Amino acid sequence: MKVLVTGGGGFLGQRLVRELAQAGTVQLAGRPAAISAITAFDQAEGAFRHPLVRNVTGDIADAAQVQALLDQDTALVIHLAAVVSGTAEADFDLGMRVNLEGTRNLLEACRHRAHQPVVLFSSSIAVFGGALPPVVDDATTPTPQGSYGIQKLIGEHLVQDYTRKGFIDGRAVRVPTVVVRPGKPNGAASGFASSIIREPLNGQPSVLTVPPETEMWLASPRAVAGMLRHAIALEPQAWGWHRSLNLPGLVARMDEALAVLRKLGGEKAAALVSQRPDPAVIKLVSTWAARFATPRASAMGFVADASFEAIVQSHIDEQLGGKVPH
Amino acid sequence: MKVLVTGGGGFLGQRLVRELAQAGTVQLAGRPAAISAITAFDQAEGAFRHPLVRNVTGDIADAAQVQALLDQDTALVIHLAAVVSGTAEADFDLGMRVNLEGTRNLLEACRHRAHQPVVLFSSSIAVFGGALPPVVDDATTPTPQGSYGIQKLIGEHLVQDYTRKGFIDGRAVRVPTVVVRPGKPNGAASGFASSIIREPLNGQPSVLTVPPETEMWLASPRAVAGMLRHAIALEPQAWGWHRSLNLPGLVARMDEALAVLRKLGGEKAAALVSQRPDPAVIKLVSTWAARFATPRASAMGFVADASFEAIVQSHIDEQLGGKVPH
Repeated sequence: MKVLVTGGGGFLGQRLVRELAQAGTVQLAGRPAAISAITAFDQAEGAFRHPLVRNVTGDIADAAQVQALLDQDTALVIHLAAVVSGTAEADFDLGMRVNLEGTRNLLEACRHRAHQPVVLFSSSIAVFGGALPPVVDDATTPTPQGSYGIQKLIGEHLVQDYTRKGFIDGRAVRVPTVVVRPGKPNGAASGFASSIIREPLNGQPSVLTVPPETEMWLASPRAVAGMLRHAIALEPQAWGWHRSLNLPGLVARMDEALAVLRKLGGEKAAALVSQRPDPAVIKLVSTWAARFATPRASAMGFVADASFEAIVQSHIDEQLGGKVPH
Repeated sequence: MKVLVTGGGGFLGQRLVRELAQAGTVQLAGRPAAISAITAFDQAEGAFRHPLVRNVTGDIADAAQVQALLDQDTALVIHLAAVVSGTAEADFDLGMRVNLEGTRNLLEACRHRAHQPVVLFSSSIAVFGGALPPVVDDATTPTPQGSYGIQKLIGEHLVQDYTRKGFIDGRAVRVPTVVVRPGKPNGAASGFASSIIREPLNGQPSVLTVPPETEMWLASPRAVAGMLRHAIALEPQAWGWHRSLNLPGLVARMDEALAVLRKLGGEKAAALVSQRPDPAVIKLVSTWAARFATPRASAMGFVADASFEAIVQSHIDEQLGGKVPH
């Protein structure tokens, strides 16, 4: 069987492409499946080279291009491609084009296949905003307060209906803010949560753009990749009719995050963080939920990180070869 | 100021066009406004003739055509055009084209205006389905079990985000099943609820396609038109940030409906109804909610019908000149 990963050039896409290629097999809807090819689709070419992997560049808003990414052997589609939150808020048209039209194009391309593919849709906790209860749970109504969250929520509804109609076997997971995101800062409004750890550990200065008492719902790239693979592995019956799910994570205050930076990175790293609240960032981030109860996901076997310290340690292990450069 | 009504050829559209044209004025977001022109847009030409009214036919999925329906004086857009529930389920592509792309086209046409227009979006209680609480209230999460409900819910999200961005002053109302709908049967899965009253009162046979104990959440055309005008009349502050609203209605069992038919239409009318449950109709209708608590709408001043008998009596008054033909 073949796999398609959209956003295959991003940090999470590249990680999943690498993990799947190296394994050569994937647990798919309750059964192991041998992988014959992986298409990594992105606007910029992915850097990962492997005999199973074909890197394809293009525009997900181009329906014909997206149609050509699948064939009758495509049994798994991992849809990560998206314009991130800050960018989708600043450029409304771009967000609608990529996040809404792109998702529609992909779902249409998945339809009319001889065998319905498993489609994993990466949604976001940004679907929750506004007047929220102290703890968001599985029954809380999504009320996004940003265009990114609106577009992700619409994507979930489409995945839900395409699944109900039998066009696909869809699964949508609301991913916590991913920390520590490797690579360079991007347009995500939540970027500071990674930057305040990643940059200082590399000897670079960084700015905390929200008040230190700000809480966020977080998960590491390692935990998120694991949960995405688990979402793919589960049998359809484990999902039932409701195909959107709040993923587990952990809540961290930004001042606690800085204390962990000091503990694992030393005083020198901690001193590289300055605090300069940015009203535009605060406006968007303050509407997001930070505390979740995720009994449904836990019952389905999803597991998050053990602690914020474990998150930073996994970053040091994976990205810095196990130790902080001094 | 000018008014645009999409679905202006439908029974509700024609009614609103007539009421607005005859009044020559409309209470708009807290202030009275004089109407200089009304465009009634539909795929088939509206029958209502009036100096203020321009009937325009076309395709709401054609973005350029929709753009041409508005100008800088358009201060009110009433968006009723839709492919109904049964049709949207049977023809998925048509539903997506009209209900999703059509709504996007209209919202885009409303954007970039010198003054943001008030946009009233007619949503539906079909956004509620599946595993619902015994009484749906203002906090119940919409989980549609049909493509029509999904498309309406996506439309609500777009209205919400276009309003938050300041592109429009949007208001979305979830309309109960409208009974007694005048005219001919259409593709709405809920059509039987009107047919079992309308046809027998006209001396025609009719079929109840659901079990007699089926309950539905109903409102008369008169009540719905009044609530749509109220939704337009309210000041933006009355709506606040959340621009979707469950409208009041009343719950009626279909056997109670038949008892009212017998009371107001006589034995001859009642005998014209046969019972023949249709699994396809039951499948769709049984997922809809029948019992609602609507405290938010009541606090905002929305008022539904007094009783099912009052609903049937208003049909007799409006459509049959006040008495049942024998």
